[in-house]
Amino acid sequence: MFNKVAFIGLGLIGGSLARRIREVFPNVLISAVARSTETINYALQNNIIDETASDLEMVVHNAKLVIVATPIEQITEYVKKVIPLVSAETLIIDIGSSKTMICKELKKYANLFIGGHPMCGTEKTGIANSDPTILDNAKFALTPYSSTPKVKLAQLKEFIVALKMQPEIFAPEEHDQAVAAISHLPYFLSSTLVQNASTPAAKKLAATGFKSTTRLAESDPLWGIDIAKTNKKSLLKQFMIFQKNLAVIKKLIVEENYPELAKLLKANREKRRSIYP
Amino acid sequence: MFNKVAFIGLGLIGGSLARRIREVFPNVLISAVARSTETINYALQNNIIDETASDLEMVVHNAKLVIVATPIEQITEYVKKVIPLVSAETLIIDIGSSKTMICKELKKYANLFIGGHPMCGTEKTGIANSDPTILDNAKFALTPYSSTPKVKLAQLKEFIVALKMQPEIFAPEEHDQAVAAISHLPYFLSSTLVQNASTPAAKKLAATGFKSTTRLAESDPLWGIDIAKTNKKSLLKQFMIFQKNLAVIKKLIVEENYPELAKLLKANREKRRSIYP
Repeated sequence: MFNKVAFIGLGLIGGSLARRIREVFPNVLISAVARSTETINYALQNNIIDETASDLEMVVHNAKLVIVATPIEQITEYVKKVIPLVSAETLIIDIGSSKTMICKELKKYANLFIGGHPMCGTEKTGIANSDPTILDNAKFALTPYSSTPKVKLAQLKEFIVALKMQPEIFAPEEHDQAVAAISHLPYFLSSTLVQNASTPAAKKLAATGFKSTTRLAESDPLWGIDIAKTNKKSLLKQFMIFQKNLAVIKKLIVEENYPELAKLLKANREKRRSIYP
Repeated sequence: MFNKVAFIGLGLIGGSLARRIREVFPNVLISAVARSTETINYALQNNIIDETASDLEMVVHNAKLVIVATPIEQITEYVKKVIPLVSAETLIIDIGSSKTMICKELKKYANLFIGGHPMCGTEKTGIANSDPTILDNAKFALTPYSSTPKVKLAQLKEFIVALKMQPEIFAPEEHDQAVAAISHLPYFLSSTLVQNASTPAAKKLAATGFKSTTRLAESDPLWGIDIAKTNKKSLLKQFMIFQKNLAVIKKLIVEENYPELAKLLKANREKRRSIYP
């Protein structure tokens, strides 16, 4: 489909994508560049990639797909560096967790760039933790422009399906509001909740429920900062909704309105079951 | 250790305890009574218990350990019913998630009753989901009285260790504050967070992170109500702490104070790692 795929940045998700490409398309040449030589050495030694170069031009040379998998803040900078180095047939995508700012800034490159966001990951980071099975059946959000070439979008969707993921098209703002609700806010709640375990008794008794609820607190704080920077508006809207809903629950507890509280807890359980049947 | 153990109530935790007792002490006679005949039939058919009776006196007859495993609200009522039916050597324990109200009300039976709370469970309920492995290495909180007979406490601790759990002694208030922080508040947060997934895009993109953070929202709403009723003071204190901490995080996002935000997110991650190394 693509004879050569180039990665710029190669962390948990980038590494997992590279491994999956290797599995599904063993003849595709995979090149990569990353901030740390340790990452690149690991990727070469473990046959995750075929080649690297100190020169970005060499890395993307002849690549028909360039995947920018750096932290969010560096994505637009790298896409802009890649643009003059590639041919018109090339497709550049990113895998950043917020899309509005990125897609707005890169709109003039709609012939080459499509925003992307695979909805997977663990609380771990780094290529050494990469694992293609985390991609299985995951949604891969795409935020194309109205002027995105139809052929390129179709090709990308086909590629994502081949990698055993599910492409889903969204407007960037719609995507950002959704991930603020189901990923970014939960991260900040998780992190905040850890602070409640402040006594030796609480730390001693913390079991699987607390572990699960605070799992996202293990995410990279730098990712959290990138989210706060690039998805501020949607994130704060979800904070507001949550704080309002939490105040309602608290009021029902304070007022001992158990019939209403039970109704709400049941409705929330039903809602979750509709999301995860 | 105990020649006969009687269960009053037999749900997920009661059933898991009964199965573990069966594994470790195959010669112990296990009797039980439960609200639903379906539960009892399941337990008999699956060899989780040996016998039942319609008469509570028959169920606890000759039992040296009685485990009251009903919903919290019925615990003190059942302990009081059992008291006149058993001998002075008998030990009665409960497994309720809050301890202050229960232990206060049963203080005059300190020669017979010790409050307990095994820190395990899943979001599932009912004997059909019971599984002794959920007990492995779990803490078993105990809230004895100063007048609790030393021999009975020692015997109970030994029994808990034999069941592959770790007994931990707390004052009831200390226990309730701790579980409010690491179990009860997380439940209400989980449930509230589900409400944020309100758009089709959010529901479509909800992946493993949201699933983990909202896992506790699957807990039985009736358990949530029991918690709200019996651990109100500690729960509301933890709500207050959480809301205050969340407001701090939100303010740092609003004010774009990324150095302080990063510091806090890192500190919370470190704290979680100290709890779950």
